Amino acid sequence: MTASQAATTRREDARVFWADAYLAVRQRSKALCAPLAAEDYVIQTAPEASPAKWHLAHVSWFFETFLLRDYLAGYRDFHPRFGYLFNSYYEQVGEFHPRAHRGFLSRPSVEEILRYRAHVDEAMLKLMQGAGGAVWPEIEKRLAIGLNHEQQHQELLLTDLKLNLYANPLRPAYRDDLPAVPGGLAPDLGWQSFPGGVHEMGARGDGFAYDNEMPRHRSYVEPFHLATRLVTNGEYLGFIDDGGYVNPALWLADGWATLKRLGWSGPLYWERVDGVWQQYTLGGVRRLDPEQPLCHVSYYEAEAYATWAGKRLPTEVEWEIGAAGLPVRGNLRDAGHFHPVVAPTGGGLLQMFGDVWEHTGSAYLPYPGFRTAPGALGEYNGKFMCGQMVLRGGSCVTPADHIRASYRNFFYPHERWQFQGIRLADDA
Amino acid sequence: MTASQAATTRREDARVFWADAYLAVRQRSKALCAPLAAEDYVIQTAPEASPAKWHLAHVSWFFETFLLRDYLAGYRDFHPRFGYLFNSYYEQVGEFHPRAHRGFLSRPSVEEILRYRAHVDEAMLKLMQGAGGAVWPEIEKRLAIGLNHEQQHQELLLTDLKLNLYANPLRPAYRDDLPAVPGGLAPDLGWQSFPGGVHEMGARGDGFAYDNEMPRHRSYVEPFHLATRLVTNGEYLGFIDDGGYVNPALWLADGWATLKRLGWSGPLYWERVDGVWQQYTLGGVRRLDPEQPLCHVSYYEAEAYATWAGKRLPTEVEWEIGAAGLPVRGNLRDAGHFHPVVAPTGGGLLQMFGDVWEHTGSAYLPYPGFRTAPGALGEYNGKFMCGQMVLRGGSCVTPADHIRASYRNFFYPHERWQFQGIRLADDA
Amino acid sequence: MTASQAATTRREDARVFWADAYLAVRQRSKALCAPLAAEDYVIQTAPEASPAKWHLAHVSWFFETFLLRDYLAGYRDFHPRFGYLFNSYYEQVGEFHPRAHRGFLSRPSVEEILRYRAHVDEAMLKLMQGAGGAVWPEIEKRLAIGLNHEQQHQELLLTDLKLNLYANPLRPAYRDDLPAVPGGLAPDLGWQSFPGGVHEMGARGDGFAYDNEMPRHRSYVEPFHLATRLVTNGEYLGFIDDGGYVNPALWLADGWATLKRLGWSGPLYWERVDGVWQQYTLGGVRRLDPEQPLCHVSYYEAEAYATWAGKRLPTEVEWEIGAAGLPVRGNLRDAGHFHPVVAPTGGGLLQMFGDVWEHTGSAYLPYPGFRTAPGALGEYNGKFMCGQMVLRGGSCVTPADHIRASYRNFFYPHERWQFQGIRLADDA
Amino acid sequence: MTASQAATTRREDARVFWADAYLAVRQRSKALCAPLAAEDYVIQTAPEASPAKWHLAHVSWFFETFLLRDYLAGYRDFHPRFGYLFNSYYEQVGEFHPRAHRGFLSRPSVEEILRYRAHVDEAMLKLMQGAGGAVWPEIEKRLAIGLNHEQQHQELLLTDLKLNLYANPLRPAYRDDLPAVPGGLAPDLGWQSFPGGVHEMGARGDGFAYDNEMPRHRSYVEPFHLATRLVTNGEYLGFIDDGGYVNPALWLADGWATLKRLGWSGPLYWERVDGVWQQYTLGGVRRLDPEQPLCHVSYYEAEAYATWAGKRLPTEVEWEIGAAGLPVRGNLRDAGHFHPVVAPTGGGLLQMFGDVWEHTGSAYLPYPGFRTAPGALGEYNGKFMCGQMVLRGGSCVTPADHIRASYRNFFYPHERWQFQGIRLADDA
Repeated sequence: MTASQAATTRREDARVFWADAYLAVRQRSKALCAPLAAEDYVIQTAPEASPAKWHLAHVSWFFETFLLRDYLAGYRDFHPRFGYLFNSYYEQVGEFHPRAHRGFLSRPSVEEILRYRAHVDEAMLKLMQGAGGAVWPEIEKRLAIGLNHEQQHQELLLTDLKLNLYANPLRPAYRDDLPAVPGGLAPDLGWQSFPGGVHEMGARGDGFAYDNEMPRHRSYVEPFHLATRLVTNGEYLGFIDDGGYVNPALWLADGWATLKRLGWSGPLYWERVDGVWQQYTLGGVRRLDPEQPLCHVSYYEAEAYATWAGKRLPTEVEWEIGAAGLPVRGNLRDAGHFHPVVAPTGGGLLQMFGDVWEHTGSAYLPYPGFRTAPGALGEYNGKFMCGQMVLRGGSCVTPADHIRASYRNFFYPHERWQFQGIRLADDA
Repeated sequence: MTASQAATTRREDARVFWADAYLAVRQRSKALCAPLAAEDYVIQTAPEASPAKWHLAHVSWFFETFLLRDYLAGYRDFHPRFGYLFNSYYEQVGEFHPRAHRGFLSRPSVEEILRYRAHVDEAMLKLMQGAGGAVWPEIEKRLAIGLNHEQQHQELLLTDLKLNLYANPLRPAYRDDLPAVPGGLAPDLGWQSFPGGVHEMGARGDGFAYDNEMPRHRSYVEPFHLATRLVTNGEYLGFIDDGGYVNPALWLADGWATLKRLGWSGPLYWERVDGVWQQYTLGGVRRLDPEQPLCHVSYYEAEAYATWAGKRLPTEVEWEIGAAGLPVRGNLRDAGHFHPVVAPTGGGLLQMFGDVWEHTGSAYLPYPGFRTAPGALGEYNGKFMCGQMVLRGGSCVTPADHIRASYRNFFYPHERWQFQGIRLADDA
Repeated sequence: MTASQAATTRREDARVFWADAYLAVRQRSKALCAPLAAEDYVIQTAPEASPAKWHLAHVSWFFETFLLRDYLAGYRDFHPRFGYLFNSYYEQVGEFHPRAHRGFLSRPSVEEILRYRAHVDEAMLKLMQGAGGAVWPEIEKRLAIGLNHEQQHQELLLTDLKLNLYANPLRPAYRDDLPAVPGGLAPDLGWQSFPGGVHEMGARGDGFAYDNEMPRHRSYVEPFHLATRLVTNGEYLGFIDDGGYVNPALWLADGWATLKRLGWSGPLYWERVDGVWQQYTLGGVRRLDPEQPLCHVSYYEAEAYATWAGKRLPTEVEWEIGAAGLPVRGNLRDAGHFHPVVAPTGGGLLQMFGDVWEHTGSAYLPYPGFRTAPGALGEYNGKFMCGQMVLRGGSCVTPADHIRASYRNFFYPHERWQFQGIRLADDA
Repeated sequence: MTASQAATTRREDARVFWADAYLAVRQRSKALCAPLAAEDYVIQTAPEASPAKWHLAHVSWFFETFLLRDYLAGYRDFHPRFGYLFNSYYEQVGEFHPRAHRGFLSRPSVEEILRYRAHVDEAMLKLMQGAGGAVWPEIEKRLAIGLNHEQQHQELLLTDLKLNLYANPLRPAYRDDLPAVPGGLAPDLGWQSFPGGVHEMGARGDGFAYDNEMPRHRSYVEPFHLATRLVTNGEYLGFIDDGGYVNPALWLADGWATLKRLGWSGPLYWERVDGVWQQYTLGGVRRLDPEQPLCHVSYYEAEAYATWAGKRLPTEVEWEIGAAGLPVRGNLRDAGHFHPVVAPTGGGLLQMFGDVWEHTGSAYLPYPGFRTAPGALGEYNGKFMCGQMVLRGGSCVTPADHIRASYRNFFYPHERWQFQGIRLADDA
């Protein structure tokens, strides 16, 4: 076999690899919608919680916009107005439908959106099979972004459905057949110590990573401790029972103002019925398990809890140092629980990946040397680098192959509809 | 045949009459929804425009609440929470879901709501067949209200669908198969004179009427003229072209403030595309016909137009005097146009019934001697007697057997999503 | 003396009459401000409550705009931007400063506004002395409007000061030296009966009246009763204690929504301190006297109270029939109480003039035959004829020579910062 | 002299030192208000811009609350409600008047607030003379905070006055007698380079510093460049002329949304009149000087400008490294310009202190090891550590003895009413 033959073969292998990956991700998006009635795809009950239908279409628009239009000769958009309807926020691509009005769209119907997906899938397979060698590296790069993008929206699909169904006084479940998660006692809270010094952080370049995880760079850290497991519901009840939601001395000023404005008296999805705490889950309303990890608290609540506990939240770099050597395993989406589970027994840092996104005390800002890439794809992450906080580690609805130690998620400090929880840290 | 037998027979006839009427109205509500996809039933794009699904359920709740619970022994509610979900505003019945959040409900599904309707229908037929003589008169009274109530919601179903579908940039039609309405030239605008003096107005008691149409009473009127037909689109374009929407001297202060706040530059559903005026209809976007009656203007716009034209709007009593002797005929829903049509030629007052609800200069207030009835049904009309204006005559989406000369409709002065238009009046 | 001499003499008398009237009104505006510190002139704590300083300037702008500019040759505006700052709402005169931002103006200082007033006064005296005979009738007409306008603002000055000072937790009094109003027991509530039929209403043309009081016209009325005195604080406490503010069945829908939105649990200025009801007055906080007339309730509250009492509010025409033959006497501003007083004993209708503006059940709409006058002065009353309700009879802060039986005041149904109370009516 | 005598002497010296410092700062607050009329003290035109009167009282309340109540035996509050009125945000001290309503207070009058100040001053002098040795160290600590606090409010007094006077269409000047600032050409923009590595930052403990400047700690920095002078108005006009305010690609997402919401098309206080750019200053409206430093831009604008310029903002640590060895000199308040001035010629980093607060790309977060102090004084800085960005270096209205290299100021990213400008940075 000549060198040229070998290269071709490798490219053929890559084509097959990407086509397989593409079909698997695309199929998974549809599978996640299997429990839905047509009506469930439509609703949006808060600006941040897009309709399921919109997610299915938007991820297709992403492939259409950033791959098919640029690289598949003769490709024709499925519909001339879908660019307007399903562009999320890419100003450089063109105008878009207001985010808060995504629930105003009864049409296109679910059926038409599935036809849209099929149209895009057919074209994408053609592209992956036939794209010339010169553009293939760029295609591979964008394929990776497109598939990771769709995986992010798979997670959002579930978090948004949870919020949207919860707005209904009937509290319908996403899945009526979801088995109860395993019970048991959480292990005692321990602390693992880390030395100070100059550490490296950020993506190493040995696999896919978003631009905001780069460049890898150095950071100076004082010695610190990380809690060996997540804060539990029971521990958080201690905070509530001790007046956590009525004592402004524990809160950031903006947090206290938010609590007052929104009338918070506990985490999202918690309800006290006849003196018993209950919790809405993707499987419906269930009794609160004090041993399970706390979930659906905002940064403000996480920070107030840490203050009450006499500790603090870890910084990004501390969290990443803790996660650096660990295998990426845990209660992620593919475990099938769709809810945080009681920490296992065992040594070292537990629950670093999965269960809940862990609040850090770090603002979402560019790493030293980061520059936003030119063009619309540069809007993916960079333009949100203000006003938000970083969360780490993925959750029980994050795809298992979508998370890594350097992954930076980010939300506004008042938001809590994602699966968000707390790991404490402390100065050494 | 004895007297007692005759009474029984008359009651049996009445039972058959009501059952027929009931089934006809109920069937019609479903028929109006035939063009809809499941997704279309769900959306609400403004607080005043309820989802189609909600209308279908609410009218059933009305029968359940005001007839079945009180008069059908052993009746069991279809669902324990539907009272909360589908009560519109009856404070005395209990708490209800916030109006602005009706579009948050993906469940109950359309299918379940149809089961709800069937459940109520079955029980209603049982009630109408078996109710005892002692309660029958009250049952008949409530049946009449319940069926008129459902007819009102049939009209709202269409007006709300129009608004909800229009919020979609794709501008989907309610019915793709709606034929174009007949064209032609509107007759010249004429004036019919009426003498002054003491006139009677209000329902005569010889057929169904709402409480707000009573008591019939006297009112003193100066001599006046009524225009023989409605204002046309072409005439209103004259107002627009003459600076109608930029000259505050023509407007009420609240009207001008509303125009500025909402950015009005023409009636609802009008759009100028490449210099050509178009209009969204239940059959989709169509070119504006200058001969057709103007539609979808608020009271503020109607009042400004009349000022510009050197005329005024009629009062309630003037309109009712004009309508008193006329047959209740016109372009009502059952004509099948679902849109105002060009005025026919002919003498006398044209278009008094149908086409568009006609703005009056009268505030919606109780007639002399009116007292709100006790109990929740008393909330039907009376509690809205503040801040709204009266409109008369029904529109192209009003059921033909639902309108009469004494009928009082009412909306806030800024609202214009109903089929609302203008007939001018003048002092003699 | 020739006819020509007589005419001249009459005109000279008229000039003296108007100059005297002008100086008296202008002087009174300043006298009302005597208790104020410079800081008190500046604040505006709600869009409807203009600063005292603004009132003093606006009424001067009115003379400048509608008299001096048009009729005093060579008149120069005091300041080129005062037209922008002190035009209230006359769109045809030009742009104006937003109403809600009147409290943003520390300059012009009080001192400069007093100079502005002196500048206008000097010019007005010159105008009244020297105006030619041809324009004199129009000048007289506008003088009458201008002086009545300033009197209206004298009342607003006090009602606005009351609201603005009340926003201060220190609850400073407008006047610390205001003597307590006389006490005593209110007479029993009686009813006076009036026959039905066609009645005339509106200004007779035998003295100054606003355009909205005309034309005088006929109206048909059913027989009715009017309460002989105003509702007292004690009677209203009965409504509160019977759950008046927690029972939606008593309220108009918009009223109930307003109560919930604003958190009403009693009239404006009422506060319960340690179980004792207190009331803020222009003389400071005082203990609530149950015998005094109720004051500072909105139309919504008045309507709910009447419903609770099994009565109703009078209509405009009913009130005017009741007032028609009565002398214009009562607890008006010039009595010096600045607060409603206990009804005197005596026969007939008591308290028809003064004490509180009496809510009617009539919407503020044009009288039959009314047309807005052309030009900016036509904006005085006509453009507000939508969405407001009529009140009658003047209050304890209305100038004694500013009220009459045909006078129509108007406010939005939620407003209650004016001295507004209740007289009940009933069907005969 | 014995050791005990020496200690006493040193304490006596300290008492004199603090009394002098106290009187100087207190006197300066009053002097800054000399140009004001009584009316100017009252107004608040935005929630963030407190009335001058309020500042004068609040700083006195600070001494009353944190020194006199705790340490001066027999001290009596000047007024029982001033604690409510003039507490800014100290939740642990008690309830307080809503920030947005500070302009609702015409009373206490300016005169009464000056009496309040005199009352506090008299008591403070007594305290400083007579306090026992045991509590003296804590008193000195709080005195330092109290005086620095008052100096901060002196700066806010000027920035707030500027905003409040600007809301007036008359655009009154704070001082009519303010001389024009010196003109000339700004030197060319140069760059100074700094090596990377582990650097120390934060207060050294050799003088007063706020808690948020501590603990001094290490930070790793890559090599970088700092611009030798501030961005000028002329340079910023280049950004505007190049479409800076219409190109979303240059902006953070939140920044672009803010620009659209607030209608920004240039910095605060800039106005284009007949094609000529003008700028409102504390001396009134003046023609924009392109050589002067840019002032009154938000973080969003600073970030967009840096993106457009192909550079970035410095981080906190970079700025502090640059400032570390420089004398604290510059166009600070005591230079008397009250406006930024053209950069001088000279080597090294120019304008690091004074002129404008310099935006950094660092979020305002606690330094490693920072813990909020217990008690109400702990609320001074710590509870604001979320959602704001750090600015450095002081401005032309910062007291000259109030600024230092480690000083951290912080504002929300949309705020721009402080004297805020831009120094660019770049990666090496």
